[in-house]
Amino acid sequence: MAQTTPYRTYLDEDQIPTAWYNLRADMPTKPEPMRLPDGTVAQFEHIAPVFADELVRQELDDQTAFFEIPAGVREMYKVYRPSPLCRAYNLERALGTPARIYYKFEGNNTSGSHKLNSALAQAYYAHEQGLTTITTETGAGQWGTALSEAAAHYGLDCDVFMVRASYEQKPFRRSVMQTFGANVTPSPSQETEIGRKMYANEANRSGSLGTAISEAVERALHVPENRGRYQLGSVLNQVVLHQSVIGLESYTALERLGEYPDVVVGCAGGGSNLGGLIAPFMRDKLDGTHPDTRFIAVEPKSCPSLTRGRFAYDFADTGQTCPLVKMYTLGNGFIPSPDHAGGLRYHGMSPIISQLRHDGHLDAVAVAQTEVFAAAERFAKLETILPAPESSHAIKVAIDEALKAKESGEEKVILFGLTGTGYFDMTAYESFNNKTMVDHVPSDEELEAGFSTIPAIPGVQAAGGLPLE
Amino acid sequence: MAQTTPYRTYLDEDQIPTAWYNLRADMPTKPEPMRLPDGTVAQFEHIAPVFADELVRQELDDQTAFFEIPAGVREMYKVYRPSPLCRAYNLERALGTPARIYYKFEGNNTSGSHKLNSALAQAYYAHEQGLTTITTETGAGQWGTALSEAAAHYGLDCDVFMVRASYEQKPFRRSVMQTFGANVTPSPSQETEIGRKMYANEANRSGSLGTAISEAVERALHVPENRGRYQLGSVLNQVVLHQSVIGLESYTALERLGEYPDVVVGCAGGGSNLGGLIAPFMRDKLDGTHPDTRFIAVEPKSCPSLTRGRFAYDFADTGQTCPLVKMYTLGNGFIPSPDHAGGLRYHGMSPIISQLRHDGHLDAVAVAQTEVFAAAERFAKLETILPAPESSHAIKVAIDEALKAKESGEEKVILFGLTGTGYFDMTAYESFNNKTMVDHVPSDEELEAGFSTIPAIPGVQAAGGLPLE
Repeated sequence: MAQTTPYRTYLDEDQIPTAWYNLRADMPTKPEPMRLPDGTVAQFEHIAPVFADELVRQELDDQTAFFEIPAGVREMYKVYRPSPLCRAYNLERALGTPARIYYKFEGNNTSGSHKLNSALAQAYYAHEQGLTTITTETGAGQWGTALSEAAAHYGLDCDVFMVRASYEQKPFRRSVMQTFGANVTPSPSQETEIGRKMYANEANRSGSLGTAISEAVERALHVPENRGRYQLGSVLNQVVLHQSVIGLESYTALERLGEYPDVVVGCAGGGSNLGGLIAPFMRDKLDGTHPDTRFIAVEPKSCPSLTRGRFAYDFADTGQTCPLVKMYTLGNGFIPSPDHAGGLRYHGMSPIISQLRHDGHLDAVAVAQTEVFAAAERFAKLETILPAPESSHAIKVAIDEALKAKESGEEKVILFGLTGTGYFDMTAYESFNNKTMVDHVPSDEELEAGFSTIPAIPGVQAAGGLPLE
Repeated sequence: MAQTTPYRTYLDEDQIPTAWYNLRADMPTKPEPMRLPDGTVAQFEHIAPVFADELVRQELDDQTAFFEIPAGVREMYKVYRPSPLCRAYNLERALGTPARIYYKFEGNNTSGSHKLNSALAQAYYAHEQGLTTITTETGAGQWGTALSEAAAHYGLDCDVFMVRASYEQKPFRRSVMQTFGANVTPSPSQETEIGRKMYANEANRSGSLGTAISEAVERALHVPENRGRYQLGSVLNQVVLHQSVIGLESYTALERLGEYPDVVVGCAGGGSNLGGLIAPFMRDKLDGTHPDTRFIAVEPKSCPSLTRGRFAYDFADTGQTCPLVKMYTLGNGFIPSPDHAGGLRYHGMSPIISQLRHDGHLDAVAVAQTEVFAAAERFAKLETILPAPESSHAIKVAIDEALKAKESGEEKVILFGLTGTGYFDMTAYESFNNKTMVDHVPSDEELEAGFSTIPAIPGVQAAGGLPLE
């Protein structure tokens, strides 16, 4: 089998999924519902002012297993999908491992990552609803680039609030978005009420995803004639749904090769790539078809929501303007150290991933950024792809798993998600090469300060995300 | 036929060519041989100190039609090839053209361009010969990145002389090369004799490809134990040979789709991408199978070797240390305006392309950079790929051809080469968007100054590239 596996497996165009898979439909314990600050379960009408209608329906639906991908989205998927399933022969040889390592590479489109899969869906629904404007936040810039690209395609205005630190460090990311016609504003800005409030406090001025989200939501709500909506690139159920194309294509490609993964590894920031990659394999685990598959979420030690966070209701944004979701969270006020260069900076985690983790279906490990960049450089030299720092978290742990297989002599199959490329992250690579990169691990006190920003919810939880007594 | 063509056609791994195609073998008039400054035709022993032995054999051989691709190169081709043949449906719809537009996309590898096809071959042969070090020059950085990547793979030291202007404007390009372990030096440098001479004249200090080539050659010749060689990313016959994989894959993919191009368009700097893309289609034209196919080389108005240059023997480098080749040239002393941001800055052109042009088998057009960037942005929005400025020259003319087809109602098939991505060219995109980009067209006086650097060769040509009377 192994010898006949090509380096790259491309499905045919007609094998691109025609429906997204909603893992929640098959979860024995569903993720808990979104709530408003007063504890009420959020309904369609509460969320529809913020998100496009069809996206709200997808967000709230934990029963329907498959959502048809609209023709208008599918047509664009054909422009850059199917993405290749790659066999990491060079890496295997270098490691001397009996493991067979596969990675699903989502970086071969101009957004440079998997983010385009959901951006196209979200922009499409906004356009279908007759909206004029979509708004969003971006940190490293992958999501902002993807949404700018999608907005350009469907003819929408796109306002991107970019975390100020990134805005200044990554001028070229900004230029790409502007090339696609987006309006890019550093966050916190002077253009929104919440932005001005954040900007006034110098400690907040370098910005955070949480703050940028608040600004983007405020902006969306102020578009004339109610024709603006906010769009988020991760965390939400709808985004995990769209990203299921990653897992579905991987599943079909592995099937064609006669393979099934023993271990599935993905990096986890908000959880969308991981949730999408694992979806069909997790279904097989949950229904007993493949009960022994291991799933590993990899997060940075400097932003360790799954490994050191609390499983609690928390705001999706620092401005506390969004509804609350039940997730592993470091607290909406948590801001990772500016030393952290590897992305995956969000304070919380997808409710789907969080629930799976809580129920023991998924493991989580945290890794230091210097070991991540070391893995990234090794991978780049062997596999000719310069990976995004985010993706490299998964590479690091896939290598660890392959080395364990070498020790035990196991012929296991490892699948990991290579979410994107690192062309816009050369400053981080430079700091690694110059040995100026440092690893930051938050102290217990820092974490406590973050937890203190998790709100109390009447009848649901105490302040700090603690259970009600 | 058209409706069933997928957006992306990927050949299978076993359809990657097993041999490179040497178009010279089938040219009725062969390109003229390399010569030494005294007019002698260069032999193996003259060139072997500079290039790896097997590459010299390929360089000099205009009889053998196919060279087997060694297994060690083929194995690496499998990591990123076959590259997709893309149908530009979105572009066609936007133009309202009856033409069917295809592009062969070579940007899906970390070097970001087709350059890797030859870099791997050149590094492989150097390694097989037991060399320790390869040296090269790079301008925009695509070639330097590709060779760094190839050197890392085969375990060679790689010294890159990077045109100083690019070195300073594109720090991230430099970082990518360093990430792959290359030693990158701005050129002109203080590290070579020729570099110091160039650096002394302030007018030359921003550097040129010609100067960087001279430095790289000098460096190669000084590697201990004769274990260094110089490698060039374009112009040479060997490079066009390696790049034939582009054309061969395109040919097979179009065959699978039941298509044959009426027009083949490629950008032309040194001519390697163009020469590789057209090779099998030109064979069909030359042998009468498809006599009516049109071939169009697209070059920048600011560096117009094919449209305004002289067909003459000239040095490949400004330092006049390399042998001479017969080509369309602006003179080895010609340096394009610093206003020019679109790549394709070499003073000469591949002898193969030059001969085809001279014999009327190939057309050439020159385009202004502002129209190139306008085409690039349009393409990016429609096709989701942010193209390299170089590649965008071909886009511009492919669009022109499609619009002509619209006028005439012709259902013609257009194939163009999309050589790479523009992620490291955002400064140029910014200047276009800010409307600070200017178009520079050299005056006749500027061209005459360049021509005056073309040497006299005893018994072959007069100074200035003029024919002997």
